[in-house]
Amino acid sequence: MGLHRVVEPAGVLPQAAWRLDAGPEIAANEVRIRVERLNLDAASFRQLFDKHGGDGAAVRAEVLEIISTRGKMQNPVTGSGGMLIGTVEEAGRRSPLGLKPGERVATLVSLTLTPLVVTDGLARWDGLSEQVPCEGWAILFARSIAAVLPEDLDPQLSLAVLDVCGAPALTARVVSRCVAEGSGDRPVSVAVIGGAGKSGSLSLAAARQAGAGRTVGVVPVAAERDALVAAGLCDAVVLADARDPVGLSTAVTTALGVPADVTVVCVDVPGCEHGAVLATADGGTVIFFSMATSFAAAALGAEGLAADVTMLVGNGYVPGHAELALGLLRSDPGVRGLFEARLAAD
Amino acid sequence: MGLHRVVEPAGVLPQAAWRLDAGPEIAANEVRIRVERLNLDAASFRQLFDKHGGDGAAVRAEVLEIISTRGKMQNPVTGSGGMLIGTVEEAGRRSPLGLKPGERVATLVSLTLTPLVVTDGLARWDGLSEQVPCEGWAILFARSIAAVLPEDLDPQLSLAVLDVCGAPALTARVVSRCVAEGSGDRPVSVAVIGGAGKSGSLSLAAARQAGAGRTVGVVPVAAERDALVAAGLCDAVVLADARDPVGLSTAVTTALGVPADVTVVCVDVPGCEHGAVLATADGGTVIFFSMATSFAAAALGAEGLAADVTMLVGNGYVPGHAELALGLLRSDPGVRGLFEARLAAD
Repeated sequence: MGLHRVVEPAGVLPQAAWRLDAGPEIAANEVRIRVERLNLDAASFRQLFDKHGGDGAAVRAEVLEIISTRGKMQNPVTGSGGMLIGTVEEAGRRSPLGLKPGERVATLVSLTLTPLVVTDGLARWDGLSEQVPCEGWAILFARSIAAVLPEDLDPQLSLAVLDVCGAPALTARVVSRCVAEGSGDRPVSVAVIGGAGKSGSLSLAAARQAGAGRTVGVVPVAAERDALVAAGLCDAVVLADARDPVGLSTAVTTALGVPADVTVVCVDVPGCEHGAVLATADGGTVIFFSMATSFAAAALGAEGLAADVTMLVGNGYVPGHAELALGLLRSDPGVRGLFEARLAAD
Repeated sequence: MGLHRVVEPAGVLPQAAWRLDAGPEIAANEVRIRVERLNLDAASFRQLFDKHGGDGAAVRAEVLEIISTRGKMQNPVTGSGGMLIGTVEEAGRRSPLGLKPGERVATLVSLTLTPLVVTDGLARWDGLSEQVPCEGWAILFARSIAAVLPEDLDPQLSLAVLDVCGAPALTARVVSRCVAEGSGDRPVSVAVIGGAGKSGSLSLAAARQAGAGRTVGVVPVAAERDALVAAGLCDAVVLADARDPVGLSTAVTTALGVPADVTVVCVDVPGCEHGAVLATADGGTVIFFSMATSFAAAALGAEGLAADVTMLVGNGYVPGHAELALGLLRSDPGVRGLFEARLAAD
């Protein structure tokens, strides 16, 4: 678990630590990666971008400062990180990850707990995108997870998919369960808030594959609506501001004909908890994947609305998540089109 | 839902609002309560108490300031509130709550969304306890929930139970499901972190009633250990610091013989997410009831540990929660003893 890498405070796990020891010498169960690219968490990048008013040089300086101070890339405000891509440089003889030097991998654990050193001052990054070209090294622990990048896919495409692969996996699990428990006389309805985004589009595809009878994708702007309609990932696409509880729930309920059995929140803006709860049927489930989610707002919001909904903290780890997400990308041209368009625009 | 009471920002639900209109004139679907006591959320009170270094007068002044500024008692730091007790003064003719003037009630929705005016300057409160004697009024909306206080119980006792009644109800639901799905050859094991507290002791009793085969209560100090052992609510009681992930998980696993199938977090201190995840079996469930829970710490912690656990945001509303919790208090002398001792100490 990397406890020996925690510098302060003592006794916590690496993710909760303020500072990690990112020294290059690896323990027998560790792996050192030569980093080639970081992929910042969307909520983290947005916070930094907004804080500095879109000044890329200032964003870059703060990211460098965070990494050098903390020994990891964890945004102190959002608490979130991202992931990275690189090449295995050295694998300890007792590492259980099965990685070999020279393999190109993506880490599937968060940067918030990954010891990291940057050696090029992020000179090739303009500070204006979540994708950060980077030289340096990172350390993986015994319990980390890393995926060898598939040879049939562009590495950036794989990275973008693997970054959010927990979302479609958990959505599939919840929807499957809902379908299995249903009486069968009524289709399971699923709403994905932020349906045109990375985790959102994969979640829509996963919900359909898992047997959802009717799906709606909610998006904030017309361009995303058009893109999601063209992708053909869901039965309906609606425009709504996810921070407007009444507007959101009305849009979802109208599009589905009923409130959603499962609502998946994939938008990285604060204040979507109440709308998601209101859009969900009694006895239904809300899955929160956004790192901008407020625990208190969700808990007290549902209570305040007397809403009997199950609310899940989106766990980024579900066994088989990488394979499931890469499989959706390969099999669903709509998903692939959205991802490729997003990468081209970055 | 009380949207017309939201002053700023416009369009959000009352819980998310910065400021509510707490005017005494009620709409046709509202109810006005004459308040006699507030019960502050434990996390909120602790934050205020710590901030002011135990200076009760300063705590009182800040609570008054919050209520007069916001039109509700919502701690701006913790985001949490509490609940209140009082007497129905006027019920609008279209209120669906079924309340009559003169009935003594406890509100089961949070103070964070309840319009509130204090008229006595909290003169009878020393600022040193969560229980706040108080004069003033509060407004209930159509979708609010309030329980008429039972005549066979001390009102303060009822209030203390109703304040946390969502915890035992959700615990019972999750444990029952776990028992029903189990193979039956292995008892369902449950750990409650903060087992001697209000929500913790009720959750332990609820877990046992729902069929848990083995239960452990985790407490931070010897006095709570002794009290919980004497109450006889669980099969084992262990001392551990919930903020120490390895210490907590070792203590739980040792006491149960296995990791917990269901772990319930009821301690109002930050930093318990990782320990709770580590203490839980693969495929198990963690229920977070503490308002000090960090969404990001839970989500990223489970991912970072590659832990396949279901994490639930503890929803304070479960149908039948008030009756279930009051029933446990009546039927379980151990629960009742802990509650009465706590009230006597306040």
